Amino acid sequence: MKLTGELVIGQRRTRGTGGDFHAQAADGGEMPDPVFGGAVTSDVDTACTLAESAFDEYRQLSAERRAAFLEAIGEEIMAIGDALPERAHKESGLPMARLTSERQRTVNQLRLFARLVREGRNEAPVLDSPLPDRQPPRADLRQRRIPLGPVAVFGASNFPLAFSVAGGDTASALAAGCPVIVKAHEAHPGTSEMTAVAIMRAAARTEMPDGVFSMLFAHDMTIGQALVRHPAIQAIGFTGSRQGGIALLRLAQARPQPVPLYAEMSSINPVFLMPAALEARAEKIAEGFAASLTTGTGQLCTNPGLLIAFAGPALERFQNTVASVLPTLPPTLMLTSKICQSWREGIDRLSHNPKVSRVAGRPNDQEQGRAGGVLFRTNAAAFLSDPALEDEVFGPGSLLVVCQDFNEMRLVAEHLSGQLTATLHLEPNDYPMARGLLPVLERKAGRILVNDYPTGVEVCDAMVHGGPWPSTSDSRTTSVGSEAIDRFLRPVCYQNLPEDLLPASLKSTNPLHLWRRRDGTPVQDQ
Amino acid sequence: MKLTGELVIGQRRTRGTGGDFHAQAADGGEMPDPVFGGAVTSDVDTACTLAESAFDEYRQLSAERRAAFLEAIGEEIMAIGDALPERAHKESGLPMARLTSERQRTVNQLRLFARLVREGRNEAPVLDSPLPDRQPPRADLRQRRIPLGPVAVFGASNFPLAFSVAGGDTASALAAGCPVIVKAHEAHPGTSEMTAVAIMRAAARTEMPDGVFSMLFAHDMTIGQALVRHPAIQAIGFTGSRQGGIALLRLAQARPQPVPLYAEMSSINPVFLMPAALEARAEKIAEGFAASLTTGTGQLCTNPGLLIAFAGPALERFQNTVASVLPTLPPTLMLTSKICQSWREGIDRLSHNPKVSRVAGRPNDQEQGRAGGVLFRTNAAAFLSDPALEDEVFGPGSLLVVCQDFNEMRLVAEHLSGQLTATLHLEPNDYPMARGLLPVLERKAGRILVNDYPTGVEVCDAMVHGGPWPSTSDSRTTSVGSEAIDRFLRPVCYQNLPEDLLPASLKSTNPLHLWRRRDGTPVQDQ
Repeated sequence: MKLTGELVIGQRRTRGTGGDFHAQAADGGEMPDPVFGGAVTSDVDTACTLAESAFDEYRQLSAERRAAFLEAIGEEIMAIGDALPERAHKESGLPMARLTSERQRTVNQLRLFARLVREGRNEAPVLDSPLPDRQPPRADLRQRRIPLGPVAVFGASNFPLAFSVAGGDTASALAAGCPVIVKAHEAHPGTSEMTAVAIMRAAARTEMPDGVFSMLFAHDMTIGQALVRHPAIQAIGFTGSRQGGIALLRLAQARPQPVPLYAEMSSINPVFLMPAALEARAEKIAEGFAASLTTGTGQLCTNPGLLIAFAGPALERFQNTVASVLPTLPPTLMLTSKICQSWREGIDRLSHNPKVSRVAGRPNDQEQGRAGGVLFRTNAAAFLSDPALEDEVFGPGSLLVVCQDFNEMRLVAEHLSGQLTATLHLEPNDYPMARGLLPVLERKAGRILVNDYPTGVEVCDAMVHGGPWPSTSDSRTTSVGSEAIDRFLRPVCYQNLPEDLLPASLKSTNPLHLWRRRDGTPVQDQ
Repeated sequence: MKLTGELVIGQRRTRGTGGDFHAQAADGGEMPDPVFGGAVTSDVDTACTLAESAFDEYRQLSAERRAAFLEAIGEEIMAIGDALPERAHKESGLPMARLTSERQRTVNQLRLFARLVREGRNEAPVLDSPLPDRQPPRADLRQRRIPLGPVAVFGASNFPLAFSVAGGDTASALAAGCPVIVKAHEAHPGTSEMTAVAIMRAAARTEMPDGVFSMLFAHDMTIGQALVRHPAIQAIGFTGSRQGGIALLRLAQARPQPVPLYAEMSSINPVFLMPAALEARAEKIAEGFAASLTTGTGQLCTNPGLLIAFAGPALERFQNTVASVLPTLPPTLMLTSKICQSWREGIDRLSHNPKVSRVAGRPNDQEQGRAGGVLFRTNAAAFLSDPALEDEVFGPGSLLVVCQDFNEMRLVAEHLSGQLTATLHLEPNDYPMARGLLPVLERKAGRILVNDYPTGVEVCDAMVHGGPWPSTSDSRTTSVGSEAIDRFLRPVCYQNLPEDLLPASLKSTNPLHLWRRRDGTPVQDQ
């Protein structure tokens, strides 16, 4: 696919005149072609107006047609071939193996949402039978969910495929029946253009209404801001920094009509190393931890950035293993030079904190754009008294907080702000303590793991990739898995509608053979 | 029950020192006893801190115990006897028959939520089986929903029982597992105190943790504001004016940790009189409309404040019937003198609008605190050009908008802002036009009715008492019906937890016999 650097606005390519820029290779190399043109605010308006005009037709297409569109996007992504992961590799520095598996995940995610649409899970139909003999009589009441309207998506830097132009936000919004306008992440414009063209082709091939999808490059922040403020936009998906997420959230709230903004922002993903587990397998846990810490150069939302454990010989065995493993793992590229710069500043801050010591990792890596795993250590008293120690340092770093007793461990848990995940390594002898921690962790995190590592987020029904503030802007939702679609839907109740006027999902005959809640019970009736 | 005018803070009664006030009877009469004491901000802090301390114990009680508490509230409300509707009658002016049925609805609502809790609908359990042979293997992933935390509820003036201290917001939040702090509405403090004492007694009798419920009187706005701002509060339910709802919403958004505020604010509930239906039964529709308009002195959220129809003889028949019926209905008391004052100002504004004529109703009622039904008339061109004609006038008034053709009717529909309901009166010959309107109305309203009247909101699974901005602050939710509970819950995913540590709702053996989504399909397995 030949890149042009143009915007995608519905079925039209157009050159953005809001400032030219080049892609930056993660390794610092030159990427002269193409010149990307940033959008201007009139492009935002054009894309949003087109999305609004496409909305009613798009949302009323049959489930089958909408599902076919989602699957066609996956096919068009695969049809690009290796050029897509290769471009993503150059732009992000992520390894090819990771990017081809991320591509598979992206395609699988589209297929999952296609299946949900066919099953009517987006509509979640509910039927309550009339009670004509009751006093007062009860009417015939039915409910389904309909899409909110056009959705803006802000692609993430750390997943150029699975959390970007055709990632989870886009797939779930399109599945819900919402047109999507993506603001491409400036760290991978070429990857974004390729993916956007794939969606454009899929939309044309499956005869979707023009405007169901657009993608804009942005040379500065004004485009993203204009998108969040545009009256046609009814919800926003964002994955990125806390600072960026909160700024956009405040804009979305300040609109004359406030709209939901789903920001997945930051998390340090605490890992509790319980004593019996450490005693039984300190070395094994340490090896798994070192691998989890350095996966994707530590640039995963669920990177294990905090360890909590009791002092003692088992913990020293754990730490010694980490200290011996980390230097054997070669430093790997970070996504951008800016991210690498922030990483080094964060590591420097920790290194100069008198209450923190560096206990594992290669000696001050300064290789161009690369980072290796680092482990710092402090004690619970220091952690509890210094809020800066809870700040996320985006990259392969973690802080071990050593506690004197369970009470202190519990205090550390209670002290934490909202997280995407919390992990416990434990053995049956640790269950009593785990029972004391679990109620605290449920309030702190969206996902609780046992004897596993938080990196690796499965796309399935039960997944929650979300969590209390400030890990996300809305703890009631997930940005990964089936329930991501719920973010873009609202319920409508139909009272006494004649069969002829009811939507197919609610007709008495159940022509789509959907699972429906009927008089309180799930049934798949005929 | 002897009223004391004291606050309810957990199991303690305490006199508010933030300003004394008396209840005002709707008919203007004196209500000297008791003197109510408004809370001070330290009372807010005490109640919120107690709620927070009760939360973890309360949310972890068995479903059976939580359900028993909800049912006990209903029993304690009934145990007050007629003193409760009698007091509500004096304070609100609403008829006794309406208040005894509202009491029944309040109790039924508590029972409904008790049943939902027993069925585990609040937890909505999801199980995805592990796939150990897949590459990479999939972990064991399960999900349930847990409550958000302490909830603040602002009681409504127009339903002193069903949308107030023990109303839908309180019942659904308690059912979700959230402690509740109610700010009592100043229009019915005695009714509020009685109901709060009933909840307090139910909590004591069923041995709930102290702090699961509190009720505060407020002498001014500072108490409500302090409640919305308090860091322990994790969600807010509000029913009231648009101005009040938006002001509190902005406060909730501006917190360091933003929290959801569910405000149900205002709606004029458009009713479309389609031509074949008018032709067939103009008089019958008119009679039903006049009854719906004047129910509760028009002070229902779903009052039919807007009629849209084509000009012609059938419409004149409709209008003539309304004009002959309305004067036969005696004016009834409004909730407060302030509401009556606003009503008269609103009616005056419409009466002086040169593009509006008054076509039905008694000649300028000026009876103390009372209002009778009024119908105004304008044309579509005037309605489309004057935004003030879309303002809600709270009370038994409605505006008939006469359209020249279907195109104009559709323009009126598209012009509307978000509504709780939209109604169509139609016959089969009207279906083609209805098909043109329905997609517009779905985007405008939370509930669509055919050949029915919007007043009367059923408490059931399919109900949506909500709608797009500005009818509510969050179109994704309902404040009436089973799904009201969803507002106070968030999902948590459990990855690889041993059976011993899983919550009962997620154990493999399904000991609570719940319906669960397992590998994509609803099952009630053993």
